[in-house]
Amino acid sequence: MSDARRYADLPSPFPMKRGGALAGARVAYETWGALAPARDNALLILTGLSPSAHAASSPDDPSPGWWEAMIGPGKAIDTDRWFVICVNSLGSDKGSTCPASTNPATGEPYRLDFPELSLEDVANAAHVAVSQLGIDRLACLVGCSMGGMSALAYMLLHPGSVRAHISVDTAPQAQPFAIAIRSLQREAIRLDPGWARGTYDLHPGDRADATYPDAGMSIARKLGVITYRSAMEWNGRFARIRLDSDQREEHPFGVEFQVESYLQAHAERFVRTFDPNSYLYLSRASDWFDVAEYGHGSVREGLRRICIEQALVIGVSTDILFPLEQQEQIAEGLREAGADVEFVALDSPQGHDAFLVDIESYSRAIGGFLGRL
Amino acid sequence: MSDARRYADLPSPFPMKRGGALAGARVAYETWGALAPARDNALLILTGLSPSAHAASSPDDPSPGWWEAMIGPGKAIDTDRWFVICVNSLGSDKGSTCPASTNPATGEPYRLDFPELSLEDVANAAHVAVSQLGIDRLACLVGCSMGGMSALAYMLLHPGSVRAHISVDTAPQAQPFAIAIRSLQREAIRLDPGWARGTYDLHPGDRADATYPDAGMSIARKLGVITYRSAMEWNGRFARIRLDSDQREEHPFGVEFQVESYLQAHAERFVRTFDPNSYLYLSRASDWFDVAEYGHGSVREGLRRICIEQALVIGVSTDILFPLEQQEQIAEGLREAGADVEFVALDSPQGHDAFLVDIESYSRAIGGFLGRL
Repeated sequence: MSDARRYADLPSPFPMKRGGALAGARVAYETWGALAPARDNALLILTGLSPSAHAASSPDDPSPGWWEAMIGPGKAIDTDRWFVICVNSLGSDKGSTCPASTNPATGEPYRLDFPELSLEDVANAAHVAVSQLGIDRLACLVGCSMGGMSALAYMLLHPGSVRAHISVDTAPQAQPFAIAIRSLQREAIRLDPGWARGTYDLHPGDRADATYPDAGMSIARKLGVITYRSAMEWNGRFARIRLDSDQREEHPFGVEFQVESYLQAHAERFVRTFDPNSYLYLSRASDWFDVAEYGHGSVREGLRRICIEQALVIGVSTDILFPLEQQEQIAEGLREAGADVEFVALDSPQGHDAFLVDIESYSRAIGGFLGRL
Repeated sequence: MSDARRYADLPSPFPMKRGGALAGARVAYETWGALAPARDNALLILTGLSPSAHAASSPDDPSPGWWEAMIGPGKAIDTDRWFVICVNSLGSDKGSTCPASTNPATGEPYRLDFPELSLEDVANAAHVAVSQLGIDRLACLVGCSMGGMSALAYMLLHPGSVRAHISVDTAPQAQPFAIAIRSLQREAIRLDPGWARGTYDLHPGDRADATYPDAGMSIARKLGVITYRSAMEWNGRFARIRLDSDQREEHPFGVEFQVESYLQAHAERFVRTFDPNSYLYLSRASDWFDVAEYGHGSVREGLRRICIEQALVIGVSTDILFPLEQQEQIAEGLREAGADVEFVALDSPQGHDAFLVDIESYSRAIGGFLGRL
């Protein structure tokens, strides 16, 4: 399997915000395009909870990336102009040090001995990777979903390290509805006997007898997909269409409607491809992050501490997880802090996931903004 | 324990819409007020998925009912004027025949041998109870949430049996978002090893070692509460308030935010008080119900077959499970069918559950409508 990942070793020990430190830790990243001699064309992408650093294909890894339609020569994030970096979040199992990694102090996987993870740690680790590439200042920092919160942490913790910012479908802090959803996702995993208090089989393969929280991960993923999309989209897409009788499950209460098999397909693709403990750590970090911690309890004051030149803030009216009013809050705060801010409110029907689906609208906004930089 | 329930024996066999029949089945109900000699003041309430027939207190059962603030002398549903009946849905374990009941053919509980349940069966069983009380025609039929769909079935299957209708926070059919949520609730129960394909301990009491889908029922209930309320309400009510440190759970990823302990409390009150198989049957029935089946595939045509004199249709803009557009659909359909229809769109912040919480707004609408009958 081809692999375009490179790795940045973190200083050892790497201190964590909430206490403890990691020894010998690293983060994975990929890059596209070329760094200009003046080192002034770097664009960093921080990701949502589950994506890897493989945001787009490259000669080293020609498989399509999670934002393939957005990144490449002549695309909205034009790799003929920008040196694009995508870092896999610290704590994610897509190459970065995470709860499934070996704890050098014991020679065993960390599992729940991994120190408490915050998005500030994710941001600091990404900053190390950028620094090691010889970049003092990013031309642009792009953050999508959870990555948008990591990006806010990055700018708060590393003043002067970013010129322009693109904030995509994110929030300055989690609201109680989002906390409730994520808490329930975590509970579904924790209550699954296969989770075994974090001691499940780290390499279950396809084995049916592996100790693994398949049910919990499936429920967590389905709940995720339900909240990442929108009721409006599904009314048009699925309505009340049934599966053909030969596609239905035979057991009682099995899948019958198309929307159910759509969720099932999403869950099956996810369940054994993401480390459950890593999921728990990153999910909790999303609940914890709060810009108000940097503003004496005020989101507005926290945002006012971010000094950048320009920003594009995008949100979608159908997003129930990160509602549009939260992107408006970010736009206003950055504007008050002195940035030249463009706020784009879209009405894409796809909900929170619109940035992955409504490529036309997002390309227009992001490509337009980058073109004017 | 005092008990105000009475029982209506269903004809035996009682044929079910999707096939099969129940032998020796019954439904529980309670009544308040007195039936007028002309038998023209009967008001029937059909309930949501989980409530019992105990909608209000009475001398026989002075404990508060689930709609206590709405029903009683001088209240919006005035028991000095109306003879109020509330029927426990067929298939619910609050006194009516349900999957936990004994199958007379085997002497064992039905469990998954209970025939497939539809809301049409719920409606037909309620109609039996009303008929046995000597009532040919209801002065008013009130249906809340799932009960609103049962009420539509009642009017479609028993033309001429209802004069006026009050439709509360309901829908003519489930949309895919609601199907997805309910499907996931059912999956959480089914995937819990304690469900044991429906053979869990029917009388678990408080025993920690009982075979029972505690985790699945907890997840199902929490997901229910999340979709019954609204993000807007929770922003004001919980924001990001943490529990005091002595209230927090000690295990990793335990409850930390107030919104999490709110969900936990709801789940604890529910988990062992509702039969899991009954929950599965009623939940699936809610997904199946579709007025369009009565209108050659058209909701509008289906609703046009309902002949009543007057209707009040109430909905709430913050309801994500039964969105306001669906109540509008009901109002328009009943109007086209010739009824004098009042449509009330509320902006209560409590979401789908507003009818249980925003008593002032619902009392005004329902009391006003009933006063004009």
